[in-house]
Amino acid sequence: MNIVTSDNNIYAFSAEMKPVLEVSPGERILFETNDCFAGQIGSENDLCTEINFDYINPATGPVAVRGAEKGDLLGVFIEDIRVEEQAVSVVIPGEGALPGKVEKPVTRVVMIDREKGTCTFAGITLPLKPMIGVIGVAPEEGIFPTGTPAAHGGNMDTTDIRKGTTVWFPVRRSGAMLALGDCHAVMGDGEIGCSGAEVPARVTVVLDLLKGLSAPWPIAVTEKEIVIIASEESIERAVTSASEAMTDLVRKALGLSFEDALILCSLSMDLRISQVVDPKKTVRAAMPLSVLPWEKAKAALAGR
Amino acid sequence: MNIVTSDNNIYAFSAEMKPVLEVSPGERILFETNDCFAGQIGSENDLCTEINFDYINPATGPVAVRGAEKGDLLGVFIEDIRVEEQAVSVVIPGEGALPGKVEKPVTRVVMIDREKGTCTFAGITLPLKPMIGVIGVAPEEGIFPTGTPAAHGGNMDTTDIRKGTTVWFPVRRSGAMLALGDCHAVMGDGEIGCSGAEVPARVTVVLDLLKGLSAPWPIAVTEKEIVIIASEESIERAVTSASEAMTDLVRKALGLSFEDALILCSLSMDLRISQVVDPKKTVRAAMPLSVLPWEKAKAALAGR
Repeated sequence: MNIVTSDNNIYAFSAEMKPVLEVSPGERILFETNDCFAGQIGSENDLCTEINFDYINPATGPVAVRGAEKGDLLGVFIEDIRVEEQAVSVVIPGEGALPGKVEKPVTRVVMIDREKGTCTFAGITLPLKPMIGVIGVAPEEGIFPTGTPAAHGGNMDTTDIRKGTTVWFPVRRSGAMLALGDCHAVMGDGEIGCSGAEVPARVTVVLDLLKGLSAPWPIAVTEKEIVIIASEESIERAVTSASEAMTDLVRKALGLSFEDALILCSLSMDLRISQVVDPKKTVRAAMPLSVLPWEKAKAALAGR
Repeated sequence: MNIVTSDNNIYAFSAEMKPVLEVSPGERILFETNDCFAGQIGSENDLCTEINFDYINPATGPVAVRGAEKGDLLGVFIEDIRVEEQAVSVVIPGEGALPGKVEKPVTRVVMIDREKGTCTFAGITLPLKPMIGVIGVAPEEGIFPTGTPAAHGGNMDTTDIRKGTTVWFPVRRSGAMLALGDCHAVMGDGEIGCSGAEVPARVTVVLDLLKGLSAPWPIAVTEKEIVIIASEESIERAVTSASEAMTDLVRKALGLSFEDALILCSLSMDLRISQVVDPKKTVRAAMPLSVLPWEKAKAALAGR
């Protein structure tokens, strides 16, 4: 087993980043991840206003993938996410979906019962739904803080990025350079308070590589759906980008006119909000595999 | 059984509208509804650019409810939605989530197999998911076209408004004045092409009335969730309104501080897109009943 320990981490995805490990497609990797505060918040007395924001959203990695070149798709199958037993969740004045309403910083510890598959906040028990907040590859150029989502991935905070899902990333630089972190024990779509239940985790993935396939955005393939994940300056623009990408994929994959593809999306595709609180907002378009089989989508992404 | 036939309809919800029927809470009503085109589109040769837009989105009703006064909540339990066997779906240049990309108007007939519970478009079979697009009560003042959603309800195009759901409306005028129509055999969240599978239907509802409860937006209570439905000029503003309303309800109902209510919403509430293509955009905030029981929510809405 390849293990990448949590002291191997980055705070930005950049075109020039150097790998801490090199693996081949098909290999399994265990990523040990920090929580989004890099462990700076250990109790309810540790407030977000008092920590060092240079150490926010670390991602473990990056890992180079042998043979991955620009124009390929890197597949990251999430085999398991094992979270630690204590998560934290916070609100910060000026942050979140209701920034002006938060009068004081608050930190809350969320205790996790892994045996029962639950966690507890304010006396209420919630089912555990572990997911990965930050996951991405090197961008074509420039430097993207790990707290920001974009076309290379990053802080997409998308609940579909969980055990059993494969996330496909368009490779932009040789080796792809995969890094991930910022796991949540549970998070609602929207993440309106600005955090989920932030928790260190051990994430096991198996890599795949498809040569000569391109996509404008990361694509999650769950047991039931193909999910295109778009991040933009506004929710409106993310809605447009996700809608455009799915309509285009449906059109090519199923051999429909643009208008018929749009009607099919109107009837059977769900636009969903991932998060509205990061520097860019994330919206995903989800299509059932029963409508758009992954084999047909792959052929369309290969330009066939 | 009280029956309201589809020739009793309105094209606007107004403060002054007059009922076609008066019933008491607890009564069952069958609404016969037109499709959103008022039957003007019968085949794929009938294009949206050639019909009379004065007759768009008719709602059957209105029905007055005895005893309903401003400050009450009217409950509409949807017992059944029986759709006809042929639906239509359209795209129109300049409309929908990708308005500049639609080059020509297209109408498609969607055939429904009620026995199998499916419908078919472009050779693809989709499960039937009947829902009500337009449902609302008289606004406090003014005139709202039935194509526009707002605080009184209207064209909310929300897939949760289906069989088994109770939709609660804040009553603003004596009698409440319930009307509904614009059913869809199936629609994806977002409705990006600008229509669902538009179909005439027979909708059976049972009414309930709670005295002295107020809410800022319509609330759908499904088998599993409490769903607050907000409609605003932009998706961003609808996100804010839905988030604010749910955080406030959670705070009051569970006796939490604002900050703790926001954290709980961040962890367990889903922000969902209803539609992005009407004159106002609709976003809903959904909270599991396991977190926010309806009895506690009702007490909070009563100010207790």
